[in-house]
Amino acid sequence: MYGSGLNKPLDGLSEELVNHLNTSGATIISIDTPSGLFIESSSLGNAIINAAYTLTFQCYKLGLLLQENAPFIGEVQVLDIGLLPDFLNQIISTAELLDEPKVRKVFKPRSRFAHKGTFGHALMIGGSYGKIGAVVLATKASLHSGAGLTTALVPKCGYEIMQVSAPEAMVIVDEMETHLTKLPDDIEKFTAIGIGPGIGTNPDTQKLLSFIIRRYRKPLVIDADGLNCLALQKDLLQQLAPYSILTPHPKEFDRLFGEHQNDFERISTAKQKAAELKIIILLKGHHTYVALPDSNGYFNSTGNEGMAKGGSGDVLTGIITSLLSQGYSPKDAVLLGAYIHGWAGDFAAQKYSKEAMLPSHTIECLGNVFIQLQEKI
Amino acid sequence: MYGSGLNKPLDGLSEELVNHLNTSGATIISIDTPSGLFIESSSLGNAIINAAYTLTFQCYKLGLLLQENAPFIGEVQVLDIGLLPDFLNQIISTAELLDEPKVRKVFKPRSRFAHKGTFGHALMIGGSYGKIGAVVLATKASLHSGAGLTTALVPKCGYEIMQVSAPEAMVIVDEMETHLTKLPDDIEKFTAIGIGPGIGTNPDTQKLLSFIIRRYRKPLVIDADGLNCLALQKDLLQQLAPYSILTPHPKEFDRLFGEHQNDFERISTAKQKAAELKIIILLKGHHTYVALPDSNGYFNSTGNEGMAKGGSGDVLTGIITSLLSQGYSPKDAVLLGAYIHGWAGDFAAQKYSKEAMLPSHTIECLGNVFIQLQEKI
Amino acid sequence: MYGSGLNKPLDGLSEELVNHLNTSGATIISIDTPSGLFIESSSLGNAIINAAYTLTFQCYKLGLLLQENAPFIGEVQVLDIGLLPDFLNQIISTAELLDEPKVRKVFKPRSRFAHKGTFGHALMIGGSYGKIGAVVLATKASLHSGAGLTTALVPKCGYEIMQVSAPEAMVIVDEMETHLTKLPDDIEKFTAIGIGPGIGTNPDTQKLLSFIIRRYRKPLVIDADGLNCLALQKDLLQQLAPYSILTPHPKEFDRLFGEHQNDFERISTAKQKAAELKIIILLKGHHTYVALPDSNGYFNSTGNEGMAKGGSGDVLTGIITSLLSQGYSPKDAVLLGAYIHGWAGDFAAQKYSKEAMLPSHTIECLGNVFIQLQEKI
Amino acid sequence: MYGSGLNKPLDGLSEELVNHLNTSGATIISIDTPSGLFIESSSLGNAIINAAYTLTFQCYKLGLLLQENAPFIGEVQVLDIGLLPDFLNQIISTAELLDEPKVRKVFKPRSRFAHKGTFGHALMIGGSYGKIGAVVLATKASLHSGAGLTTALVPKCGYEIMQVSAPEAMVIVDEMETHLTKLPDDIEKFTAIGIGPGIGTNPDTQKLLSFIIRRYRKPLVIDADGLNCLALQKDLLQQLAPYSILTPHPKEFDRLFGEHQNDFERISTAKQKAAELKIIILLKGHHTYVALPDSNGYFNSTGNEGMAKGGSGDVLTGIITSLLSQGYSPKDAVLLGAYIHGWAGDFAAQKYSKEAMLPSHTIECLGNVFIQLQEKI
Repeated sequence: MYGSGLNKPLDGLSEELVNHLNTSGATIISIDTPSGLFIESSSLGNAIINAAYTLTFQCYKLGLLLQENAPFIGEVQVLDIGLLPDFLNQIISTAELLDEPKVRKVFKPRSRFAHKGTFGHALMIGGSYGKIGAVVLATKASLHSGAGLTTALVPKCGYEIMQVSAPEAMVIVDEMETHLTKLPDDIEKFTAIGIGPGIGTNPDTQKLLSFIIRRYRKPLVIDADGLNCLALQKDLLQQLAPYSILTPHPKEFDRLFGEHQNDFERISTAKQKAAELKIIILLKGHHTYVALPDSNGYFNSTGNEGMAKGGSGDVLTGIITSLLSQGYSPKDAVLLGAYIHGWAGDFAAQKYSKEAMLPSHTIECLGNVFIQLQEKI
Repeated sequence: MYGSGLNKPLDGLSEELVNHLNTSGATIISIDTPSGLFIESSSLGNAIINAAYTLTFQCYKLGLLLQENAPFIGEVQVLDIGLLPDFLNQIISTAELLDEPKVRKVFKPRSRFAHKGTFGHALMIGGSYGKIGAVVLATKASLHSGAGLTTALVPKCGYEIMQVSAPEAMVIVDEMETHLTKLPDDIEKFTAIGIGPGIGTNPDTQKLLSFIIRRYRKPLVIDADGLNCLALQKDLLQQLAPYSILTPHPKEFDRLFGEHQNDFERISTAKQKAAELKIIILLKGHHTYVALPDSNGYFNSTGNEGMAKGGSGDVLTGIITSLLSQGYSPKDAVLLGAYIHGWAGDFAAQKYSKEAMLPSHTIECLGNVFIQLQEKI
Repeated sequence: MYGSGLNKPLDGLSEELVNHLNTSGATIISIDTPSGLFIESSSLGNAIINAAYTLTFQCYKLGLLLQENAPFIGEVQVLDIGLLPDFLNQIISTAELLDEPKVRKVFKPRSRFAHKGTFGHALMIGGSYGKIGAVVLATKASLHSGAGLTTALVPKCGYEIMQVSAPEAMVIVDEMETHLTKLPDDIEKFTAIGIGPGIGTNPDTQKLLSFIIRRYRKPLVIDADGLNCLALQKDLLQQLAPYSILTPHPKEFDRLFGEHQNDFERISTAKQKAAELKIIILLKGHHTYVALPDSNGYFNSTGNEGMAKGGSGDVLTGIITSLLSQGYSPKDAVLLGAYIHGWAGDFAAQKYSKEAMLPSHTIECLGNVFIQLQEKI
Repeated sequence: MYGSGLNKPLDGLSEELVNHLNTSGATIISIDTPSGLFIESSSLGNAIINAAYTLTFQCYKLGLLLQENAPFIGEVQVLDIGLLPDFLNQIISTAELLDEPKVRKVFKPRSRFAHKGTFGHALMIGGSYGKIGAVVLATKASLHSGAGLTTALVPKCGYEIMQVSAPEAMVIVDEMETHLTKLPDDIEKFTAIGIGPGIGTNPDTQKLLSFIIRRYRKPLVIDADGLNCLALQKDLLQQLAPYSILTPHPKEFDRLFGEHQNDFERISTAKQKAAELKIIILLKGHHTYVALPDSNGYFNSTGNEGMAKGGSGDVLTGIITSLLSQGYSPKDAVLLGAYIHGWAGDFAAQKYSKEAMLPSHTIECLGNVFIQLQEKI
């Protein structure tokens, strides 16, 4: 069915036709975009074709990249129809698709790195009673992404769990049994810090976050309940070190920056806040979006539905923190991290299926990704 | 040896011949059904040929599907002799064989699912002192079957064990060391709940089960000691939410619904109780039988003797609960769950042998099954 | 170098020649048996050729099977020179080589077993503070050998370790932290019991062993510190249920039955004690020897030097107990168990090397063995 | 670019040219050695070409083997130009490259070993609160390198972690929760002892080290915080049993033997101290250097940047201790240990990538190395 990029909801006969087709049980293939879908703004609530496949021309359009449109667009295939690059650049002005050639430029093979002597020391801060697995996953992801040293800071109830699960990691233990309360000594010595996985929102823990933000003057990676702690003390947003990295999913995003009606609005806010606060915001979704302080943005092109499982975000946090610790710039760490996270998940889906694959499998498949990246192409 | 479907026990010379053949050490192949075996009622206690192989015609007969006849029928092979479908439908009127084409119609690939936005939040309730492994297996099975989130509710003695064994799961801890006693807050938020693996039958735990049945108004999956708790408070049977799923083995079944002399009687009771209580009863056996509230029933065609090991049932509970959480109807979740559980076990037997394979291997092989299901055929 | 089966030590020129050759650095190949080696009695202390390879004729001789002669015989190859079977039977009158054809006769494929309905319930009793790994290995070996259910009885300090390591096993916990003290209820319900791995020799534990021997009237499998406990209360030897199975290495053997000068003497004692006490004695060594109550004995032909590591014996105990629980007779359980243990170890050596292979790898390779056994040949 | 072995820093036009080339972004290939690099002394601070590849002639030169020159030399390839061996021996007089032919001469296949009856009992001493993983890695490395028995001595906080992680190891537990304080009984019974991984520098632990050095009269392997404890009590250096093995990285080395400006100085000190104290010093680096008491030294030729991660050194300690326990001389244990550690790491890099590989993977790949070593070439 031929789709148009109009910004007026379908009505009358068109609406009836769309509803009829959607309930017909037929497999619908949309050309360009599904009928009724807006590509530059939200069309939620309107009558829209539920395509199983969308064949679009030359490049992705914004509406084909957003989570909220997933039910309408099905599997998207981009067809090359020979448009001029200049014309293309007009279409996607504010967001680029993060693809393999871009990532290969960012990636620095370890042998070159070695010239700089060290791969840094990453600190993963997370965990609370019943949610230690989250920081275990983040820590293992950091280890499997190349950090020279990885230390985990966990509450007492996480001590044995972490040491059994990740023998290569060192562990600093908060004296509180159930949640984190205290700043460890010498946090300045860590090359990079990621905070949030499974950390909870206990007032003590909120306080800990605020201490870290004020004391550790390098960019932090903040995720999950770390973001929820931040949302409970929004003044801290102003105090974040430049190029700090926030990695919210849409609900966490709304807690931080207010309710949004749809993903179009969220992306607009993300851009604005990244510039205003001089931070990097990675908004998770169908295609994860990265907003940079310089007003540029990227949609990630890797990953799959098998990653829609608890723990995926923790793995991403560990990867980005590990890359930061190895000397990647915050921008490069986020872009490379988001891309290889999705790529490893794509390997895992192939090996274990989208249903059975777990974030642990994604971690395990990071090796496959790095082996691919090292190969000259 | 030619078998007949008579309903009169063998006697006289026939009986002597059967006894002679059974002790002769010869490999016996039965045609149709082993001599002396009844196919529509129990023939336990009678003289019956112990076949190593049974070559039957066109379709399974009831007597060839029941656990109690396993010693007599050996390996069963169905031979196509060109009977008309209409005739076949007469033969198997009340029970259908659950096979791959039926299961493929039920299975919804994750990509389609993704249109519905979420894969749900499964809660596995189980474990007691010395039996935490059971709920670990159920939890891992849930994770490997595609639930978006899986939380385990365990007594205190299961806290570290669960967090070490399944980092992707969140854990809610009952303050009692040895067994479960308290309802967690907000159980309504869980999309699906499975209860029973390793839970024991402590009076506190019985009470917990009754609270859950009364408070959580969606269908529950109840297994193992959950069923034994139920058998100790049979009035709860009437209070089960419609389409709740019970998964007893024959002993648990008898505790719930009274003593039965044989599997024919059990199947008859299962049908009757499923209809009467508006629940789904999965009766484990040589071929697991699923009785539905609408009086239909299915025999599962997957699985093998290597699954006759402690922990197999816990894995099945985890799978069904996980499928429920993803939006499958209770009927579809049970049928798909039973089938893929057995299929994964068949993969495991091939890879690890029937002797050495463990329920953990079955979990691991769920990925193989989902990969097969995703392939178009 | 041509070897002779004489029973007189070499002297004079022969002795000098042997010493010269042994220090020459040359690779020595012996024909028949290494010069100076006695084949029916111990030749320790004599001048004996240190062969790298021994090419012997038609069959193994006793002297080529014993641990104490390992330094002299190197790798043994049996050459077929066409001797008559009758003559052969004269040569090896009291001990047979346990080989694949014999084991295939003993092995009952699980499908046949299934006719008997159940695979039993094995109980592994073991562990003490710092030695829980031993009973973990035994328990996992039992699970991987096909028992229907496996329960481990451990002291309190082993609770979490066991549940994390073997989720398929149930655990009964002795209330003492550091060692075992109390008989669990209902030990009669277990189909088979193995006792000893890592159990220590605390007086409480000795008492526990004596209670079990008196109360559990079926054959027990006793290993490791279980044997040392037995050696401290030798009167218990008379009270062992017929066909109980002891699995000592030479030192444990001597503690039980007195000091021996060499392996020839040990084998002689093993035969005598097996007959006298109506038990089965498995004496570990280069080729493990099994002495049966009926005066027959078998040398095992599988296994390798990579199994000379702590934990190998624990795995054997688990395998034998598991086979017993499945209905194998004690004799068949020991012969099949010893053989498949060595065979799994041979798979492990091939996959992981003799140096790096661990008893855990042997457990993992049990599946390879069962797959081989199931194949018709 | 043609490099020269001069000992005068570049200046003037040469210096400008080098700086220009280094910032040009071009891929630089150096012939012989990078311009500006000294090969027999340190050239840090000078203008030196940053080569991506260095093609050198006939053999390694000292300057191409040292960590400090890693940024300048890139990947080194040795080209055979047909120099006479005599001339070569002049060039590398004091240090040899440890390569496969040398290591094959040292390696004794397990079958030969078996003639000596036993593979010894290794004791790994290590761990403190939050650093138990280090001694877990060392213990597993010992197990995977062929020791007959491996026992770990850990503080109380390491008990469960070790038993869960390494069931084949026995555990002796110090009664102190957080660090090691007491000598275990009968340390003489251990064939080899390795001390240090994760041990910390608590005064109690320092005392423990001094007791062990005085009481255990065989060569010790001392690593990591064991070395830091030693550096805090330097008089103990004189009391080390001959052929004790120290395995410092450069910082630990400097703590022991004073500050050094560069790796050339460190190697010179290592040689001198090894001879003076009659010990073996393994100095970790780009190419690990082994200084022997007889004034000989070896550069190891295996290993890669993927091993620049916390835990690699712990694995090396476990390997060397395990080899010692099996009867290798200290010299052979160090040379074989260093070589197979790097080789296993090279296997791991190939399988898991340099970024994602972990010391645990290196342990796992030890089997690949032993399988290669057993193959005749």
